[in-house]
Amino acid sequence: MTFVNAQCRLAARPVGLPQASDWSYVEEPALEPGDGEFRVQVEYLSVDPAMRSWMNAGRSYVPAVEIGEVMRAAGIGRVIDSHHPDYDVGEHLYGVFGVQRYAVSDGSGVTRVDTTLAPAPVHLGVLGISGLTAYFGLLDVGRLEPGQTVAVSGAAGSVGSVAGQIARIKGCRAIGIAGGPDKCRWLVEELGFDAAIDYKAGDLRSQLNASAPDGVDVFFDNVGGEVLDQVLLRLARGARVVICGAVSQYNATEAPRGPANYMQLLVARASMTGFVIFDYADRYAEGVTQLAQWLGGGQLQSREDVVQGDVDQFPDVLLRLFHGENTGKLILALEGDR
Amino acid sequence: MTFVNAQCRLAARPVGLPQASDWSYVEEPALEPGDGEFRVQVEYLSVDPAMRSWMNAGRSYVPAVEIGEVMRAAGIGRVIDSHHPDYDVGEHLYGVFGVQRYAVSDGSGVTRVDTTLAPAPVHLGVLGISGLTAYFGLLDVGRLEPGQTVAVSGAAGSVGSVAGQIARIKGCRAIGIAGGPDKCRWLVEELGFDAAIDYKAGDLRSQLNASAPDGVDVFFDNVGGEVLDQVLLRLARGARVVICGAVSQYNATEAPRGPANYMQLLVARASMTGFVIFDYADRYAEGVTQLAQWLGGGQLQSREDVVQGDVDQFPDVLLRLFHGENTGKLILALEGDR
Repeated sequence: MTFVNAQCRLAARPVGLPQASDWSYVEEPALEPGDGEFRVQVEYLSVDPAMRSWMNAGRSYVPAVEIGEVMRAAGIGRVIDSHHPDYDVGEHLYGVFGVQRYAVSDGSGVTRVDTTLAPAPVHLGVLGISGLTAYFGLLDVGRLEPGQTVAVSGAAGSVGSVAGQIARIKGCRAIGIAGGPDKCRWLVEELGFDAAIDYKAGDLRSQLNASAPDGVDVFFDNVGGEVLDQVLLRLARGARVVICGAVSQYNATEAPRGPANYMQLLVARASMTGFVIFDYADRYAEGVTQLAQWLGGGQLQSREDVVQGDVDQFPDVLLRLFHGENTGKLILALEGDR
Repeated sequence: MTFVNAQCRLAARPVGLPQASDWSYVEEPALEPGDGEFRVQVEYLSVDPAMRSWMNAGRSYVPAVEIGEVMRAAGIGRVIDSHHPDYDVGEHLYGVFGVQRYAVSDGSGVTRVDTTLAPAPVHLGVLGISGLTAYFGLLDVGRLEPGQTVAVSGAAGSVGSVAGQIARIKGCRAIGIAGGPDKCRWLVEELGFDAAIDYKAGDLRSQLNASAPDGVDVFFDNVGGEVLDQVLLRLARGARVVICGAVSQYNATEAPRGPANYMQLLVARASMTGFVIFDYADRYAEGVTQLAQWLGGGQLQSREDVVQGDVDQFPDVLLRLFHGENTGKLILALEGDR
């Protein structure tokens, strides 16, 4: 049987928000798996702010996607044919399969997805890299201690929403910073955050002062820009700022905005530390086990924002992240005959 | 005997570089020491970039100097009369005596200066807060390890010149960043730095790439601004950026410049940590003992840039720091009849 593969490729390096002309679409016969390989049909694509940074040239934590390459994306696929002894047809696998319908793999960097534990999309969210990023970022980099005050930006996103919930589970006061009253209500009423700050409502400074009267001990930052600058002014002595992302700056057309208040690190005897979740690969199992336990026990809630479509909708779905339109984990579910 | 005290007071909060109108001078009879107090004649004043930040209102690591107050300054004075059982006439003491000829103290925050160990000015430099700042900042905050590459900005200044020398003593490669060929030559030829970068010569990036081909493991930053941004692009994996000061930004008339490249902390899995030397007060003795041993053994060199004058020259001497005119520890030696 011949499959037609559809791919979304990077056509040009974007300046600012990615535009239609930065992408191209190709339909061609899907590659056949060779010896020691298998083929997956990609069912779910993880849509993440960091993807924007992969589209830029220059030094980063992963190589840039080259012009003409299939856009890099993590996803979950189902094995549809296999010449690999370890992978059977029908299995669900997580891997960096790219924005395409079919991918061939030799198993490198691929992990099994246990869909009896939770539906596949949850394995891209709370039980996937997003949840693990929150887990290790908060506990290992942020060195969270019970009773402390934790602020999270991008709190209604896939990582932030988990980070705030973990802070609560660990006996901390969790303050979410998000855009708009609906997201803020969700954080407090559904996820149990102690407070939520709507950065679009203005006067971030007063809101922070009111929500964190004793200062912020750990700031888990996904956003950068003005939000970071304001939280820096509110750091408690010895605070840790965990740099997970800077979604407010990814589409900057000039030099990104650095934190003008960074000297507050000195005033507060604080640190700002960047991390990359891939460094924790040998501890993923530990993280997933704990996250699954919390999820099963109802202490941790999962929310996926799933958009149905084909690969040519990927560019529009990606833009939702930068317009703040998603709540929870943004996923593109590829339509298929499954 | 009545002494006439001359004081330099803060008259207004400066905008940008301090101007003549930001200061006032007062001559009045010196205070007499009461019971449990003593009086010093101030002989040497420590002139430091951080003084500029003390002149601003707002949250910092010490309270702002109030308008009308004597300008805060650390210095060394000689006891000229005493009603305190622990302090005798003739002793040299270190304390925050202010920019004035005479000060009265009850001994709080005052430490003895052993002028048999080194001349008094050295106790404001290598054996004083400057040396201790370099020592604890590099070893405790920077967690320096032998064989690593250390970059120091403001390297010809009082703290930076010591930091680079300690890096060498600890078996590291020391790269100094300073302004102008004379300072750079001094760093390499006199102090033994492995390389010096003249930031005024342009193309900081290429110079950094050439001097630190394997990246920078510890960056001891006194400067901020463009220098910080360029070093961020050169961080080695796991690097530590020690935030000691930001002299390039202290006179900013708009919002200070934040490090636009701060997301390199993520790329390099690096941290940026601020510290304040006062937190190490209970370990000063350890630091001074070690610094004195290195100084005595010839491994560490001391250089003071001493200006003779009266308190009314303090404003001009302070500006030397911001024009990059000093090499080593800048000190105002007050003329007197000693």
